[in-house]
Amino acid sequence: MITVNTNYMKLKASYLFSGIAQRVDEFTRANPRKNIIRLGIGDVTHALPPACTEAFHRAVDEMGDDATFRGYGPEQGYDFLREKIAAADYQARGVDIAADEIFVSDGSKCDTGNVQELFSLDCTIAVPDPVYPVYVDTNVMAGRTGVHENDRYDGIHYLASTSDNGFVPDLPSESVDLVYLCFPNNPTGATATRAQLASWVAWARQHKALLLFDAAYERFIRDPELPHSIYEIEGAREVAIEFRSFSKTAGFTGTRCAFTVVPRNCRAFAPEGSACMLHPLWLRRQSTKFNGVSYPVQRAAEAVYSSAGRQQVDALVNGYLDNARIIREKMAALGFACTGGDNSPYIWIDAGRDSWEFFDMLLHTAGVVCTPGAGFGRCGQGYVRISAFNSRENVEQAMERISSALA
Amino acid sequence: MITVNTNYMKLKASYLFSGIAQRVDEFTRANPRKNIIRLGIGDVTHALPPACTEAFHRAVDEMGDDATFRGYGPEQGYDFLREKIAAADYQARGVDIAADEIFVSDGSKCDTGNVQELFSLDCTIAVPDPVYPVYVDTNVMAGRTGVHENDRYDGIHYLASTSDNGFVPDLPSESVDLVYLCFPNNPTGATATRAQLASWVAWARQHKALLLFDAAYERFIRDPELPHSIYEIEGAREVAIEFRSFSKTAGFTGTRCAFTVVPRNCRAFAPEGSACMLHPLWLRRQSTKFNGVSYPVQRAAEAVYSSAGRQQVDALVNGYLDNARIIREKMAALGFACTGGDNSPYIWIDAGRDSWEFFDMLLHTAGVVCTPGAGFGRCGQGYVRISAFNSRENVEQAMERISSALA
Repeated sequence: MITVNTNYMKLKASYLFSGIAQRVDEFTRANPRKNIIRLGIGDVTHALPPACTEAFHRAVDEMGDDATFRGYGPEQGYDFLREKIAAADYQARGVDIAADEIFVSDGSKCDTGNVQELFSLDCTIAVPDPVYPVYVDTNVMAGRTGVHENDRYDGIHYLASTSDNGFVPDLPSESVDLVYLCFPNNPTGATATRAQLASWVAWARQHKALLLFDAAYERFIRDPELPHSIYEIEGAREVAIEFRSFSKTAGFTGTRCAFTVVPRNCRAFAPEGSACMLHPLWLRRQSTKFNGVSYPVQRAAEAVYSSAGRQQVDALVNGYLDNARIIREKMAALGFACTGGDNSPYIWIDAGRDSWEFFDMLLHTAGVVCTPGAGFGRCGQGYVRISAFNSRENVEQAMERISSALA
Repeated sequence: MITVNTNYMKLKASYLFSGIAQRVDEFTRANPRKNIIRLGIGDVTHALPPACTEAFHRAVDEMGDDATFRGYGPEQGYDFLREKIAAADYQARGVDIAADEIFVSDGSKCDTGNVQELFSLDCTIAVPDPVYPVYVDTNVMAGRTGVHENDRYDGIHYLASTSDNGFVPDLPSESVDLVYLCFPNNPTGATATRAQLASWVAWARQHKALLLFDAAYERFIRDPELPHSIYEIEGAREVAIEFRSFSKTAGFTGTRCAFTVVPRNCRAFAPEGSACMLHPLWLRRQSTKFNGVSYPVQRAAEAVYSSAGRQQVDALVNGYLDNARIIREKMAALGFACTGGDNSPYIWIDAGRDSWEFFDMLLHTAGVVCTPGAGFGRCGQGYVRISAFNSRENVEQAMERISSALA
């Protein structure tokens, strides 16, 4: 008898974004003439940079000619892209990461979801609370948790990220093997200082733990004191895997390209305690279960590193950061305590009431969709996330409507 | 202490295609002037059809304009593509498959590798021998096998595909829960008749088992009596998942698009024996760990179903099938027993000696790269696979060289 993976049955039924979609649908049906402004899901709205579409077109032409056609590419990505990533995102910042430590993929969601396959099923996991749901759900599906009760899964260590610690979690007080960190953070928009990351790296080295560092939003950092990569911290290469994406920087959410960094000397351990390098394991995982990113997409991503591409991406990111500033200033002026929005596209707002109640109020009185913080975890209750990913016009209109509604 | 998934340590070290690459490299270094013709790895060589590149370009233009830009798409694929697949590949052939039973992905390697996540870790697996290595390796990595000894993993049931059974395995004699089947077969090129597939479907229904049916090469079928889909068999919807790809038909090996069919009523079971539908489980898996296929790639795949696209794909497939006929006729004329090549791009050749010995002989005397059958499993020993994926000119030249070498 073929039996299912019963860990799937532990997953809580309602998913945050489908819950939002349902409430927005109901509102739209009841108010068909009301124009809705969506500042909920963190999806970009502006077109790909011209440098990227030009490179994309050229590569499609190559694929249309027998003489330049490309079949299967390397599962870990083409060297032309890996070399530019290593040079521009790491070496130019004085960070020691080589091209063969870069693994190009079709998305950070896939990579942060798949990486747990490399580890023992009985390792203990810690995640921030609030948290991007993929970190948790993929461990539930793999069987590393117990049942779901009171907004939490048995067997996962939740690291509270609250106003008390500036939304940067304290080091674990209990024994933990694998820690997911994300800075600039989704959903809170909080950033970690060099000293804070250094304390995490020191902790991981001391406790033989591993850090999974999600840096999907690093391009939004403007404060020159803040680290962009975990590898800016001495000693991080041995204890951290880093995830980055072209999604929120060059607008690749629908085009799909990202990458994961696994340093050659990044280690886990065999059960008897000897070090076991993760680079060959991830290479084996990717070459067995993945067939590389579409060649034209890799050429489009490469163009992000051209002179024109850099300027165009900067303009996109600056535009979204201007939106974030507008949102933060307006919400602060209305009396709400806000985090993020300065080095991040997300503004985390203390709603002073139930998250879903505030969500419904914004939807019904202002026609604006945000994301209820409670959907990201127990510590998100009482907060909402507003995203800067929209046009300037829509953001300004949304803020005017919210001001009128709350005045 | 963060410990690794020790199942990875069970994977045998040498991978077939890297072994081939190493021998070819050595030969090329020793014989720098010899021109090598590669009929080894099953990768296409001809450009994308013009209908596909035209649609691809149009979609890239859409991504370059704020007004038509698309961000995150549905994880299971856009309806425009799912509807065309369901209509053309299934409904037009009288097969009852709906658009919402199609899950678009970036490759059949990913899908056939990921699907095992849906099932209990203690279910028993059967694979044909010889076999596409991904079916086996992904189950090893998940922990469903013991150690590797004498070319086989403990705990896997190997279904011998030999000249005695026409390379179509007999029904399992032991209790098995999950069976991988592939027709037209990679590597043997063998096809299964309607009656043979019907016996598998009846067996799966009787034994509460599930069939994973890899139909990546269905487009190469020319015999009108042969089924293209497992769902042409009455009762298959409940007991089979089917995998298909644009890789070998429209030349998408480097462009990346495929799909998996999970019928609404396809079932596995909860441990206590109640039926448990697989459609919502696969949807949950894909929406948690995958973010959809690049939008321009999906538009390129959609063009396969246009009038021009169909004709261009037919021309590509017919060209490769003509190559296959040339290879098969020549090898048969040289006295080798051959399978495949009529409804498949692969010709499976009884070498009459050790697989790697024949591989080395072809490489050194004819400068032609094939694939040693032993790399696909114990029953592949004594065979080689020759692939029809190359230009007509190269295939004809390779066959002339082989004729001279073996004369």
